[in-house]
Amino acid sequence: MGLFSSEIKTMDDLFVHTLRDIYYAENQITKALPKMIEKATNPQLKQGFEQHLQQTEGHIRNLDEVFKMMDKEAKGVDCPAIDGIIKEANEVAGEVDDKDVLDAALIAAAQAVEHYEITRYGTLITWAQQMNRKDCAEVLKRNLAEEKATDEKLTQMAESRVNVKAMQ
Amino acid sequence: MGLFSSEIKTMDDLFVHTLRDIYYAENQITKALPKMIEKATNPQLKQGFEQHLQQTEGHIRNLDEVFKMMDKEAKGVDCPAIDGIIKEANEVAGEVDDKDVLDAALIAAAQAVEHYEITRYGTLITWAQQMNRKDCAEVLKRNLAEEKATDEKLTQMAESRVNVKAMQ
Repeated sequence: MGLFSSEIKTMDDLFVHTLRDIYYAENQITKALPKMIEKATNPQLKQGFEQHLQQTEGHIRNLDEVFKMMDKEAKGVDCPAIDGIIKEANEVAGEVDDKDVLDAALIAAAQAVEHYEITRYGTLITWAQQMNRKDCAEVLKRNLAEEKATDEKLTQMAESRVNVKAMQ
Repeated sequence: MGLFSSEIKTMDDLFVHTLRDIYYAENQITKALPKMIEKATNPQLKQGFEQHLQQTEGHIRNLDEVFKMMDKEAKGVDCPAIDGIIKEANEVAGEVDDKDVLDAALIAAAQAVEHYEITRYGTLITWAQQMNRKDCAEVLKRNLAEEKATDEKLTQMAESRVNVKAMQ
């Protein structure tokens, strides 16, 4: 989150800072996904990543809307967590030779990304509700629902076909 | 995960590598939690972190058992993801002055840690089942159940009291 005491004094500050954390994260994800699309072999997985790239662009627009509602500038702050998660994802993408094992590793990496987003959106929604900002909470809930659906789809892919192929 | 092509050729390799990733993560968490315990103000939160420290030590013992089952050396590999998540948690712990806002931030940081563990254990259990290593899956499920329960408890704390206090 790259927090500094000068910035974070109230829950309102913490909310905006965490919004900037996930804004940075979503933007980094739009840069990471094209590499994952390129590396994925399973057509269903490739298509899933392509669809999620479009969704991620929508999430950024939704976050722009929340910044407007809060009357704050839409900008990111350094987020070592997503940087670390994406670093791991890139390492997998570059270092595993076997196509099926690589697909399994890419799914695992993508699920780590999804879970980071799920936890951050969950936190932001709770805080927005407590701050009586239901308008912000409603927009954030749309992003959360899509992240959860993506994670669920990735679980189904991992359980059904991609890994089973890798075991053969 | 710090993957290298020389190591990861099969799903078995990927499984052991990911086991070492979460082993490193659990060990880093045992180092991070005492600082979070020290910083937390709400007694319920402090106690929750203390309990989770004990659980984390149990998770490491469970992972030792899985390494034995796999006949592999129990050791960690660098995990930039957990390093990044903990870096954020430490920044929060050190940089927010207001006690109640700090508690809310600590809960959010702890939930990011839990979600990383939830995704990794979920992946490992799926792979273990597909590799017909139900013995490993059963042990890993115990860790996953405790991580999920901890995340749920943190959500309840965030929703019920800690944040509401911070809004006042």
